[in-house]
Amino acid sequence: LIDVRSKRTKHSNVLFLLADDAGFESGTYLNKIVQTPNIDAFAKRSVIFNKNFVSVSSCSPSRAAILTGSPSHQNGMYGLHQAENHFNSFDNIESLPSLLRKNNIRTGLIGKKHVGPSEVFKFDYEETEEKHSINQVGRNITKIKLLVREFLNTTKNDPFFLMVAFHDPHRCGHVTPQYGPFCERWGSGEIGMGLIPDWHPIYYQWEQIQLPYYVQDTEPARRDIAAQYMTISRLDQGIGLVIRELQLAGKLNDTLIVYTSDNGPPFPSGRTNFYDPGMAVPLLISSPFHKQRWHQVSNVMTSQLDLVPTFLDWYGVSQSHNTNNLMSLTGKSLIPILDKEPSDTDFPVFGSHNFHEVTMSYPMRVVRTKRYKLIHNLNYQSMFPIDQDFYVSPTFQDLINRTISKMSIPWYKNLKSYYKRDEWELFDLKLDGSESINIANKKDYADILKDLQQKLWKWQVETNDPWRCAPHAVLEDKGEYKEMSGLKLF
Amino acid sequence: LIDVRSKRTKHSNVLFLLADDAGFESGTYLNKIVQTPNIDAFAKRSVIFNKNFVSVSSCSPSRAAILTGSPSHQNGMYGLHQAENHFNSFDNIESLPSLLRKNNIRTGLIGKKHVGPSEVFKFDYEETEEKHSINQVGRNITKIKLLVREFLNTTKNDPFFLMVAFHDPHRCGHVTPQYGPFCERWGSGEIGMGLIPDWHPIYYQWEQIQLPYYVQDTEPARRDIAAQYMTISRLDQGIGLVIRELQLAGKLNDTLIVYTSDNGPPFPSGRTNFYDPGMAVPLLISSPFHKQRWHQVSNVMTSQLDLVPTFLDWYGVSQSHNTNNLMSLTGKSLIPILDKEPSDTDFPVFGSHNFHEVTMSYPMRVVRTKRYKLIHNLNYQSMFPIDQDFYVSPTFQDLINRTISKMSIPWYKNLKSYYKRDEWELFDLKLDGSESINIANKKDYADILKDLQQKLWKWQVETNDPWRCAPHAVLEDKGEYKEMSGLKLF
Ligand SMILES: [Ca+2]
Ligand SMILES: [Ca+2]
Ligand SMILES: [Mg+2]
Ligand SMILES: [Mg+2]
Repeated sequence: LIDVRSKRTKHSNVLFLLADDAGFESGTYLNKIVQTPNIDAFAKRSVIFNKNFVSVSSCSPSRAAILTGSPSHQNGMYGLHQAENHFNSFDNIESLPSLLRKNNIRTGLIGKKHVGPSEVFKFDYEETEEKHSINQVGRNITKIKLLVREFLNTTKNDPFFLMVAFHDPHRCGHVTPQYGPFCERWGSGEIGMGLIPDWHPIYYQWEQIQLPYYVQDTEPARRDIAAQYMTISRLDQGIGLVIRELQLAGKLNDTLIVYTSDNGPPFPSGRTNFYDPGMAVPLLISSPFHKQRWHQVSNVMTSQLDLVPTFLDWYGVSQSHNTNNLMSLTGKSLIPILDKEPSDTDFPVFGSHNFHEVTMSYPMRVVRTKRYKLIHNLNYQSMFPIDQDFYVSPTFQDLINRTISKMSIPWYKNLKSYYKRDEWELFDLKLDGSESINIANKKDYADILKDLQQKLWKWQVETNDPWRCAPHAVLEDKGEYKEMSGLKLF
Repeated sequence: LIDVRSKRTKHSNVLFLLADDAGFESGTYLNKIVQTPNIDAFAKRSVIFNKNFVSVSSCSPSRAAILTGSPSHQNGMYGLHQAENHFNSFDNIESLPSLLRKNNIRTGLIGKKHVGPSEVFKFDYEETEEKHSINQVGRNITKIKLLVREFLNTTKNDPFFLMVAFHDPHRCGHVTPQYGPFCERWGSGEIGMGLIPDWHPIYYQWEQIQLPYYVQDTEPARRDIAAQYMTISRLDQGIGLVIRELQLAGKLNDTLIVYTSDNGPPFPSGRTNFYDPGMAVPLLISSPFHKQRWHQVSNVMTSQLDLVPTFLDWYGVSQSHNTNNLMSLTGKSLIPILDKEPSDTDFPVFGSHNFHEVTMSYPMRVVRTKRYKLIHNLNYQSMFPIDQDFYVSPTFQDLINRTISKMSIPWYKNLKSYYKRDEWELFDLKLDGSESINIANKKDYADILKDLQQKLWKWQVETNDPWRCAPHAVLEDKGEYKEMSGLKLF
C-alpha cells in the first residue's frame, strides 16, 4: 500500500542538521564577522536557498511542522511543549519518522526534541533532553559527535534518517545566566564552565559585531549579539564534527544533508514574529548526486513545510491516502531544484502562529511572496506578547529601560508600535525591506491586499484552520450549519 | 504512607451526580415552572447549598478541577479536551480516582468524561463517550440506570466511588439540531426521535417559562428555555432512577450522595463567564449519617474545589505529601457543615478560566465573597469570545439579529458591553445582584478593591498560576530572576 523506495534511492540516507533560533549569522549568508568555516565549507557542497521561511517562528510548533509537513493549526502543536505550556500534536497524526520506519528506514534523533506526544514522534534511536541535560545533547559537540558515531555504527548498511538538533544558538539567560545569555561560556574551559574537548571557543568583541537592522545600536544589545556569535561558532564546529563522522562512516556519497533552523533569532522582530527576522531562516541542501548546482544560490521561495515532501521524494516514499493520517500536504519537494533552478520561483509561502508560551495567545497568519507580505494578527486588539527568555534578555531589558526613562533609542521601531499591531499588516518588501510601513490601507495596494487575503483564506480552508473565523465570529461547521465568517458587529 | 480509612467510614460509598450546564432550574432552587420532583425529593434528604460556585465555567476544565481539587491553571486542563481543542491535564497530576484506587475504593464513571489524559483520569469502571455515543451514556436514562445497576452488582460489598455524569441539559443544536437545541426531543418517542423507555417527557410552553434576569425577554429566547426545561426534566428523572438503583442495591444507608453541575447554563452571562449565572451552581449533599440537617439550607460559601477534600474526608483518606502529586489543595471539606452550620460562613471562593475552545483565549481570575465579586479580565483589550454552541443558539442569534437590525432588546445588557469588558470588574452584590455596575473605579470601594486584589494575588501565587503577570509583563521565576509583575509601559 505504501510505495517501496525506488531503485535509484535504495541506499540513500538523510542527515538533517537543525539549529535552534539561528538566523543568517554565517559567512555563507554574508555575515563578515562571525566565523563559520564549517558551514561555509558545507555550503560549497550545497544549494544555498536564499528565500526560505519557517511556517511558524516558535520552537515546538516549528519542529512539529517540520516533522509532519503540516502547519501548527493543523497538527495540533499550537505552542511550546514543555512544562506549563504542555502543547502536543494530535494523537492521530502520522509523523515523518513514523512513516519512514514503516518503510524500513532507520530513524535517529540526537539533541533537542521538544515535541510530543511520544507515540507520534518516535525515532528508533533517541538521545534527547528527555534522557539527558539539554546542554549535553544540544551544545556539547563532543558528546554529539560520539552519539552520531554510535548511531552510524549501529545502523550499519540500512538506510537512515538522522536528525541532529543542536540547542545552539538558543538563549539560556532565563535558566542558567551564570553561563552567559546564550550559554556561550558553558564548556569553554573558563573557570567553572567545564570543557568541551572538541570546541575551540571564539570570542567576539561587542564593538565589532555586524549589527542587523532590527536590533538597536546600543552596547547591551551589541554585547548580546557578541555572545550569540560565540555560540554560533560552537554550532558551526559541531556541524563540522558531525559531517566528518558521516564521512568516516563512508556515507558522504549517498546521504542528503540538510541544514536549517527552527526559527529566527531571539531579537526584536525575530523569534515569535512573522517579520522576516523571525520567519526567514537559512537552508542548505547538499546532495551527492547533484553536484552541478553545488555552491549555487536558489531564489525559489521555499518553506519548512517543503521538507517532508522533499525527504519523501528523496527516499522514493509516497504518502498513501489509505493507510496513514499524514494529512494531504501543501508543501513541495525541493529535490528538482537541486537539478536546476525552475523558471517560476515565486511560490507563495504560508505561516500559522498560535502560541509560543500558553500564556501568549497571539494567533497570526501570514502569506509571503517575493515582493509582498501579508500578516493577519487575529488578537490585534491586545498587545503583542513577549516571551520569557527574550523579555529578560539584555537586548529587551535595554529597550524597556530606555523607554521608561524616555531616552532615545537608536532603533528602527519603538516599543509602543511593537506591542500594538494592526489587524492586517501589508508590506511591499521591494520598497520596504525592513517591513516598517504598513500599506494595508493604501488604495494603490487594494488589489494586492485582496489577492493575498484570498490566497491566505484558501490555504486556511485547505488546511482546516480552526481559527479561520477569528476574531470576529466563530467557526461552526458541524451539523447543518455552514461556516460563519467575519461577522463584525461593532 | 497513605492513611487507611477509619473504622467509622469503613463501608462508606459516594454517588456523585454531575449535570452538564445545569443552573438553578429546579423546584429546590425556587423555579416554579420546571418540574423536578426527583431532585426535590432528594433535596429533602440533603443539605441545600445556596452559595456554591464552580472554579471555572467550562466543561473539561471544571471536571478536571472537580476531580483534582485544583484550579485550571494548576492542573493543566486549560480548556476543552476534545478535537482541535486538545487540552489535557499534566501527566504527573494525581487525580481523585487514582488516589481512591490506591486506597482500595472501587471507582466508576458512567456518562460524560471529557477529561484526559487517560493515565491521569482512570476509573476502574468506565462507560463514557469514549466507548459509546454521548447521548446513549449521557441522556438515555434507561441505559444509564442499567449501567449503574451493572456497576453496583459487580462492586458487591467493596467501598465505591461512582460518578454519574449526565450530558443533560447541555446544548446539542450545533451538532444534531434535528433533536432540538438541547436534544430535548431525542428519545421522546416522537417520530424519528427514538424512545427512552423510562422517560416520561414533559413539554413546556414558551409563554410559561420563568425568565431569568440574564436572558432577553423574546420569543426565540423563551422557546430556547422551554427546550432546556424539557431536558432538565429528563435529567431529573434520571437522577430518580439512579438513586432508586442505589436503594435497590441496599446502599442508600451508607452512601454519600452529591449533586451538582460542572458550570452554569449556556445563556448570556452563563457558561464561560464568571458572572453568577455562569459561576453559581446547585449543590446538594446527602449523608445518611447526618439526618439532622436534611432539607436545611446552608449559606456557607463553597467551591467545587471543596469536593475533593470533602470526598477524602468522607472516606478518611488523607493526602500524603510524600507519595503523590496531588498538589497541596486550597479547598475545604464540607462534611462538618453536614453536622451544623458554622458561625463563619463567608469564605472567599476563587476561580480561574483560561480557555473554553482553544481559539477562545480569554483568561480571567475571580474572587467572590458573599457581598463582593472581583473579576480580572487578562485579555480585556480583546473582545470576549463566544463559544460555538452558544453562538449558533436561538438565544444568541436573536441577540445578534436584533443588534444588527438596531431593534431594541428587552435585555439587561447590550452586546457591545458584553463583548468589551474592563480589565477589573468589581460588583457589590448586595446592591447589584445582576452584576451590572462595575465599581472598580469608585473611590468608596478602593479599600475593597485592594483587599480583593491581594486575596486573589495570594491565591494565584499559592496555586502557581502561570498567568499571574499577564497581561502587562511576563512571569519569570527560573534561575536567578525574580518574578516580574505588572509592568505597564503604556
Ligand atoms: Ca527555536
Ligand atoms: Ca458543561
Ligand atoms: Mg524555545
Ligand atoms: Mg461543552
